[in-house]
This record gives sequence, C-alpha cells and structure tokens, in this order.
Amino acid sequence: MSDESYMKLAIQLAQQTKGQTSPNPVVGAIVVKDHEVVGVGAHLKAGEAHAEVHALQMAAEKAVDATLYVTLEPCSHYGKTPPCADVVIEHDVRRVVIATTDPNPQVSGKGINKLKEADIEVKVGVLQEEASRLNEKFFHYIRTKTPYVTLKTAVSLDGKTATSQGDSKWITGQEARMDVHRYRHEHDAILVGIGTVLQDNPSLTTRLPDGGRNCIRIILDHHLRIPLDAQIVNDNEAPTWVVTTESVPAAKVRELENKGVRVIKLARDIISIEELLIRLGEEEITSLFVEGGATVHGSFLTAGAFQKVITYVAPKLIGGKEAPSSFLGEGIPFIDKAMSVDIQSFEKIGEDLKVVAVHKG
Amino acid sequence: MSDESYMKLAIQLAQQTKGQTSPNPVVGAIVVKDHEVVGVGAHLKAGEAHAEVHALQMAAEKAVDATLYVTLEPCSHYGKTPPCADVVIEHDVRRVVIATTDPNPQVSGKGINKLKEADIEVKVGVLQEEASRLNEKFFHYIRTKTPYVTLKTAVSLDGKTATSQGDSKWITGQEARMDVHRYRHEHDAILVGIGTVLQDNPSLTTRLPDGGRNCIRIILDHHLRIPLDAQIVNDNEAPTWVVTTESVPAAKVRELENKGVRVIKLARDIISIEELLIRLGEEEITSLFVEGGATVHGSFLTAGAFQKVITYVAPKLIGGKEAPSSFLGEGIPFIDKAMSVDIQSFEKIGEDLKVVAVHKG
Repeated sequence: MSDESYMKLAIQLAQQTKGQTSPNPVVGAIVVKDHEVVGVGAHLKAGEAHAEVHALQMAAEKAVDATLYVTLEPCSHYGKTPPCADVVIEHDVRRVVIATTDPNPQVSGKGINKLKEADIEVKVGVLQEEASRLNEKFFHYIRTKTPYVTLKTAVSLDGKTATSQGDSKWITGQEARMDVHRYRHEHDAILVGIGTVLQDNPSLTTRLPDGGRNCIRIILDHHLRIPLDAQIVNDNEAPTWVVTTESVPAAKVRELENKGVRVIKLARDIISIEELLIRLGEEEITSLFVEGGATVHGSFLTAGAFQKVITYVAPKLIGGKEAPSSFLGEGIPFIDKAMSVDIQSFEKIGEDLKVVAVHKG
Repeated sequence: MSDESYMKLAIQLAQQTKGQTSPNPVVGAIVVKDHEVVGVGAHLKAGEAHAEVHALQMAAEKAVDATLYVTLEPCSHYGKTPPCADVVIEHDVRRVVIATTDPNPQVSGKGINKLKEADIEVKVGVLQEEASRLNEKFFHYIRTKTPYVTLKTAVSLDGKTATSQGDSKWITGQEARMDVHRYRHEHDAILVGIGTVLQDNPSLTTRLPDGGRNCIRIILDHHLRIPLDAQIVNDNEAPTWVVTTESVPAAKVRELENKGVRVIKLARDIISIEELLIRLGEEEITSLFVEGGATVHGSFLTAGAFQKVITYVAPKLIGGKEAPSSFLGEGIPFIDKAMSVDIQSFEKIGEDLKVVAVHKG
C-alpha cells in the first residue's frame, strides 16, 4: 500500500462526517505500522477529540515507530482540546504524512515544524487537492471569515424556473430534490428571500430518508413582511433568523422574537450582501446554501458573492418571454464582464442533469 | 470476432460518410470469409453504388459462401441502382447480418425475404440501436416525409443567450462554435429567423478546418424584410431560400430571385411551422438545423416540431430580468404540459458543456 492509498482511506473517513463538525473541518486519520492499520480516527464534533488523537488512542503502544496519515496538519495550539502535534510526539510515531497544511495563515506550518523539531519525518501534500476539496467550505471561511456560499437553482433545459403562468411545481424530479436535502444537511445555514416564504410557506428542513441535520434557516426580508403564521416561524424544527433593515417596526420584531425567531438588523436601508456575509461569518456560519428565489440569486450574482453554483437541469422545455429564469435583478450588462465559473462536475441524477460550477478566481 | 464486432466496423464505415449521402442514408458493409475481411464498402453519394455492392465487388469471387454485414437492409427494388438483394444473391454469399430493417413500411422486410427465398441465412437486429441512431434523421424523414429538426442553442449557465444590453458575442467558446459547424456539415439545411439576419448579417456557411459541406440556408421572413445587400443574398456560397407569406411585394421577390435567391411563399399570413416542414419535406430536405433566434425556437417549441435539442452551456452567469433566454414566444403555460425531452448525452466541449436531448414520444 502506498502513501496515497492510506491517505485515500483517511479522506474517506473524513467524508463520512460531513455536516457534523462545523465550525471545525472534517478530518480523518490512519495509523499504520508494518503495513497494518493499527488505528483509525475522524473528528466527529466541534469540542471533541481531533481525528489523529482518536487514531493514536486506538493504536496505543502500537503507535510507536508507526506512520500517521492525517488529512489536515495537526494543530500546534491549545483550543478546546490540547495541541495534536504534542499528542503525536508523545506517541513516538516515526513518520507523519499530511494532505493539507492548516488554512489559517497565522498557524499554518507550525504543527509541521513542531513535529520536525521532535525528529519526526514529515511528508506534506499527499492527495492535497482531494483533501482541500473536502474542506473547501471550511478553508474559505478560515481565510475570509465569511461563509462559503453555494447558490442552488433548478431550471428547465431552456433555463426557466417556472412557466409564464408562475407554475413551478415541479421542474426537477424526486432524485434531484432529494440531492438538495443532502446539501442542506452539509451546510450551516440555508437562505431564501421573503418572496419564497410568502409564495411557498416552506419548512426548509432537511428531509432525508434517514433524517439528516436541519440547518439554520435565514430569510432575507427588507421590510419584515414575514407572516407570523409562517411555518418557519412556528415549527421549532430549527433556528430561524430573519435578516432585515433598521427601520422596521419594533412591534413586529418583538412578536417574532417572542416566537423564538432571531431578527438581525443590518445597518443600511437596503440589505448589502457583503455586510450580510460578514455578519454571518461573525456568527460562525461557515457555509451558506442559497436556494433563491431569482431575486436573491441576482443579488449574490451582482455582488460576486458566491463560491459554487449548483444547477439542476430538467429535461423539459418551457419557453416564453415572460417565464422567469434563475437569476433576476439587473444582471451583468456585457458578456466580457459576465461572472466566469469553472464546470467542476456534471452528472445525470434521475432524469435531470446536475451541473456543479465554481466561481473563478 | 463476433457478429457485433464486424457490425461495429460496418457502422464505423458508415459514420465516416455522414453529411454526404443525403437524401440517402449512410450505410456501411463488410464481407467476411473464414475470419478474414475480404471486402469493405460504404454508400458515398446519392445515385452512386450502395455499400454492399462496393463491398461485394471488392470481395469478388471470395464473396462466395462468405458473410455480409450491412447496417441497413439491402433494398429489393430498382431505384437509381439495381436492387442490392439481387447483387447479394448473385455473389453466392451464405449469410447476411443486418443491423436495421428498411424504415419505409412499404418495402421493409422485402429485401430480407428475397434473401431468405434464395436460401441465404439472415440475421437481423445486430447493433440495431446504434445503427438506427446513425440514420435517425433519414429514418424520421422516410417515416414522416418531413425533415428531422434539430434545435441548437447556446446559453450561459443561467440560461441567457445575451445580456440585458443585447451583447451576445460570444457566449460559448471556440470549440463549441466549431462543433456547430460540424452539425451544419451533416444537415441538408440550416434555418434562422430574419431577426438573426438583420442583427448579425451571418454567412451561415460551414467553416471547418478541412472545409466541410455548406447546406441550404433558409430564412423565415414573414414580411420579406431581408436586405438586398445581406451576405447570404450575395455571396453565392450556398443556396439561399427565403420562406415568406403570400402578400409580400412582388417587386422585392423579383429582386431577390434575380440575385439567385429562392423565395418560397406559404399559403397563410403567418408562417406555419407544420406547413413549412411539409413543404421542405417535398423539397427532399431530410434534416433541418435550426439555429434560432429565440423567436424561431419558440415557434418550433409551441408547434412541438422538433426531434433533437442541442444546448451549449457556457460557464458564465449573466443574470438580469431583461436578458433574453433561448425560447421566447408564448411558451408552455403549465409544467405538466412542458415539452419533455430525454437527455441523450452530455459532455465537456472546451470550457462549455454540451447537452443533447431528444424529444420524447
């Protein structure tokens, strides 16, 4: 077995914990001695032990002179748990193979240095790209202090989200809609505009066959038009945050707060996406899943404030000048100023096509 | 080598002649004796010899007791050439393997019967689906007497064909645009609306690195607004047909005809897509490549008059309520009435995504 194949295992371990470690990254670790796996571990939940600690505890005395594979550089500082680099050194491992360094520039490389100073052989960069993608949301958050933003749209083959009559149920099939729930599970928060609440009165919960984690539900609502009897105001299924502006009526704010809704007032009369993201970053929202509607998508597009776009394309043609598409608002006036993305993957999902694209640069 | 692998070869031969045999189908043939290929052939051009005749001539006396693989049932009637079934019988082949029967219900099976009556062993249906797809346009034409219609669009990831300012150059990249020229090469005619001519003054020729065949250029032009100095009116690169209505000025018709343009007047005041297709079928146009614009696409959509939709999706986001999408007109009012297609294939082509879908049912 090569370093790559052991690291692949560590990455697979990390993958299983997606959606449960925020605001921490997902991390997997494997301890190997004499070509035998003697310890495996993953970080399960913020505040609990890190992946390498779990793996080393499992290995116990077999960790001596072993190789540790870990998808992220061991930490060198005291957080909610002691520095992992120290734990590695205490276990007398001989060699540490690391996929990615710590994304935080203030500590990046410090864990590696600590290991090297203890005469441990360190190899960095094995399956780096794969491991980085695993934590793309977390890495973005650490570097920018704002959430990783994923825009999700569902359109017909000719780019429509509804017919000219406003009929939109359903554009895509069952499998694509289930896929959306998997994304909800993996995000800290989901965001929609007040228009979506007024039109569909959605629950915005995660409904996977085996349950799934609900994320915080955020509504953009300039004028605090959200009805007091809206499902998300009353169902207590997950936290509901309403983002609004300064000048809304205090009485309505109180009524919502009495029902357990958090009302966040931004400083300006118009919600600024930039300000919103900074504020959400302060609240430790590391990832935001924006489900629309088209006006909200348009605001994120104009602000250039997104990292990923997931488009479900249904095998239908709707047509019509009046039928809406997925990004409204003013849009980009010239092609050479259009937002460039890279198509990262595309696959059939049920009858539909799923296209994943990432913002360029 | 199995029957499938020899048939695959015959299909590959046929594939090479795409775009040059209309109004005939593409056909490939292989003669095999004692596990050796002793003859190969393809139909090259309407009026010239059929594939199996070429292959049998090459095999000559080695055809005796050999197996003939042919992608389409040998014909049984006198057309521009003598019946192929007779030629097969004369060569004393022992066995004939056929991928698809003749699509024309009036002659389908007659060639096979003739062979069987001559005590030749016949096997039908080997790689049938692949071989049918090869001639999907021709088969459609034979069955319906109207051309196989392919709609082509190029859109941003959010379904726009231009920005709100009308900027549309270029949505897609070089590779996708070259791919469009390959489709032009394979079609009998290309069709655009007068709006496209007025806006872009295009040549609508096939510009592939190694040349390529120009197809007939058809312009839908209700009011005969086409400028006399338009490129397609003057360049003599390929036939230009203008489809218009009864009540247009005779003088303009004459001026166009003097420049070699063919003016086709349909019976009604509004161009009916159904009538258009019947008329083009009568003119032996077996395949039509509709490049738009969006109003023309909308008319074909509303009429349900298309077999294939090719969508090039560029990795760009444009947005904007006013930015046009690929199918305008009235559109379909309700989702459950939307035109259903099957996504047949999808692939990266340069930076863009190409989605091929076929009309359902």
